[in-house]
Amino acid sequence: MTEVMTAPSTESLWTDRFAQRTQRMTSSAIRELLKLLEDPEIISFGGGLPAPEVFPREQVERAARRVLEEHGNTALQYGATEGYGPLREMLVRHMSRYGIDVGPENVLVTTGSQQALDLIGKLLINPGDHIATEEPTYLGALQAFTSYQAEYLTVPIDEAGMQVDELADVLRAAPKFIYVLPNFQNPGGVTLSLSRRRRLVELAAHYGTPIVEDDPYGQLRYDGQHLPPLVKLDADRNGCAHGERSFRGRVLYLGTLSKTLAPGLRIGWVVAPEEVITKLSQMKQGADLHTSTFAQMVAYETARGGFLDRHVRRIREVYRVRRDAMLASLQRHFPAGVLWTRPQGGLFLWATLPRGVDAGALLQHALAEKVAFVPGAAFHPRGGGAHTFRLNFSYCRPEVIEEGIRRLGGVLRHHLA
Amino acid sequence: MTEVMTAPSTESLWTDRFAQRTQRMTSSAIRELLKLLEDPEIISFGGGLPAPEVFPREQVERAARRVLEEHGNTALQYGATEGYGPLREMLVRHMSRYGIDVGPENVLVTTGSQQALDLIGKLLINPGDHIATEEPTYLGALQAFTSYQAEYLTVPIDEAGMQVDELADVLRAAPKFIYVLPNFQNPGGVTLSLSRRRRLVELAAHYGTPIVEDDPYGQLRYDGQHLPPLVKLDADRNGCAHGERSFRGRVLYLGTLSKTLAPGLRIGWVVAPEEVITKLSQMKQGADLHTSTFAQMVAYETARGGFLDRHVRRIREVYRVRRDAMLASLQRHFPAGVLWTRPQGGLFLWATLPRGVDAGALLQHALAEKVAFVPGAAFHPRGGGAHTFRLNFSYCRPEVIEEGIRRLGGVLRHHLA
Repeated sequence: MTEVMTAPSTESLWTDRFAQRTQRMTSSAIRELLKLLEDPEIISFGGGLPAPEVFPREQVERAARRVLEEHGNTALQYGATEGYGPLREMLVRHMSRYGIDVGPENVLVTTGSQQALDLIGKLLINPGDHIATEEPTYLGALQAFTSYQAEYLTVPIDEAGMQVDELADVLRAAPKFIYVLPNFQNPGGVTLSLSRRRRLVELAAHYGTPIVEDDPYGQLRYDGQHLPPLVKLDADRNGCAHGERSFRGRVLYLGTLSKTLAPGLRIGWVVAPEEVITKLSQMKQGADLHTSTFAQMVAYETARGGFLDRHVRRIREVYRVRRDAMLASLQRHFPAGVLWTRPQGGLFLWATLPRGVDAGALLQHALAEKVAFVPGAAFHPRGGGAHTFRLNFSYCRPEVIEEGIRRLGGVLRHHLA
Repeated sequence: MTEVMTAPSTESLWTDRFAQRTQRMTSSAIRELLKLLEDPEIISFGGGLPAPEVFPREQVERAARRVLEEHGNTALQYGATEGYGPLREMLVRHMSRYGIDVGPENVLVTTGSQQALDLIGKLLINPGDHIATEEPTYLGALQAFTSYQAEYLTVPIDEAGMQVDELADVLRAAPKFIYVLPNFQNPGGVTLSLSRRRRLVELAAHYGTPIVEDDPYGQLRYDGQHLPPLVKLDADRNGCAHGERSFRGRVLYLGTLSKTLAPGLRIGWVVAPEEVITKLSQMKQGADLHTSTFAQMVAYETARGGFLDRHVRRIREVYRVRRDAMLASLQRHFPAGVLWTRPQGGLFLWATLPRGVDAGALLQHALAEKVAFVPGAAFHPRGGGAHTFRLNFSYCRPEVIEEGIRRLGGVLRHHLA
């Protein structure tokens, strides 16, 4: 992958001071690849971008007008660190339909769910602490945790998500927490089965390990049954054991409006026991005081009154067609020896080349044919994965997907022959 | 000050893990005091809030409509970590009128300038590192730096700002950087004189110490001449010495639109040599990917075409009247033995009680009379300052200022007698 780090310069005042903190930072391959989108001829399966066709542009415009006309002085002023009250309450109602039963005091609004990852890292990670993750896992989480000098213990995934049988060994090494994406994992596209969910929650309880459950795509399911989130399974377990009324447990749950409303608003949230929300809020005060009041109020005004649910149903329809288009194109154009996952939702699928084939090298050839993907190595915190890559199916229209996969299939056939 | 930290609970899963990271965090007195604003009868000189009367509500509304109609898909999508290009270019043009000569590649847009403080802390501070600050200094900076386990070395202020003569001793102890607010300091209201600016830049060069120049109020000058920012004095010095064309130096300069446009948009920025911007951008990727594209584009669309300069002139007129009203009211109502600064700009002035009088205790009496301020202790990173407090003069209208200072004068006369 391209490295955004500048080469060390001996004449620099800053290099020595900063080198220590940056030398271990993985640069964001995704961000770099976004720059390729500036070439309109490139078909990019690289980013994690929602389709602009589903942005509720007119609804946001009406919402912005209403917010500024009716609550302009609030929208433009400083606000509470925890977030805009009506938005927190709406998120609580929204999550209750997915089995998550918490109060507004359990919700901290963040500047995208990326900030929740950062605040959790800031609160929990001391230099050298280990974090247990799936392998592969989300690059942005690695970036957030690595900036606090985390190390990683990894558990491989298969079509049913994290191979939880291998988790016990990892937990005996006492990681600070388990980071997991149970639904339509980024980058794998796989979903953690119900039996593994139960086992994961049990193991975490047994070893006293907190879980960070990252769920940006959970609502974007295109077939199959919704599975209960870990935060619910854990709360049920604690609720039964202790008869508590208020929400507690060992799962921090992360949600976002980036995939269901619009990423440009930068609205995410974290669910946690109230005492943890208090501490994360202190971290957030120091990090950015609060998330844009204006963006929060516009998001609330756009989403409220059932619009968010209706809009999610519409997005599911659009993305289901694109997923199906990509799967059909892969079947048509990819050569034997290349495998891929069949996601039930989300934005991504994951492809595996024969061992020894380097996806990074293939990307150069693919770019020459004006098609892009993300090589898998960067998603592997302990190395490996050079023969894997990620494909996004949400951003391009079906006919563009077919053309891009046709081009990519040609590159693969040429270089695997 | 009120502490937002919850008491340790032995039955908590989280307390032990989190206590280490939070026990040294200063809670934000300002944030807590903001909650008092919910009582409409309280006259608050506590917050650092801009006056809502000067918010450009209609301009923001027009800007939001134009952005969504003409660039909706960009505004709602993910964007570049460094910030929205036209906004960065506009900030460069804006700063050039204040003597700061840099390019867009030297500007990183942040989620309020609070985030710039956080990213700088993340990049530079290792646990136990010392930071040199004015005493008193901005609470939010202490909160950002303390979350990275900074320690503090302090230099007292007087009417001409940081007493730079005492800085050499501090720099010999090798702090990681000097944090300073040269204009209308928060909380002191004082401004660093030109001779001290020159001396500060020389000392920093001599000891090889970076400077973080926080300038949220620099444009809000109500009388006297604008003084050159440290980043300019330092760049002039380096430019002459090395004949460099690109911007370099040892000063990181922080600006914000929160005091000139609207804090609810959360738009700040940091100016630095390009190699430092690259590293701060990597930190920002992990922290929140990027600042809200929508908020950045609305801020740009509102501010461009000279509006920001015209609006700053209007704010100056409004706040000058309020500063004068507060100074006149203080003269009328405060008893002998209480001293205060006479700021040439900004939002705050600083009051000093006779030694031994506790401003925190006085606040309780003041609240009983429905008037609020911020006691000074929290602004002192090494303790002390219990007999000082901060008054904000931007938020309340002149007649409210007169009434609030009359009430506060009554409390002081009663308790100092």
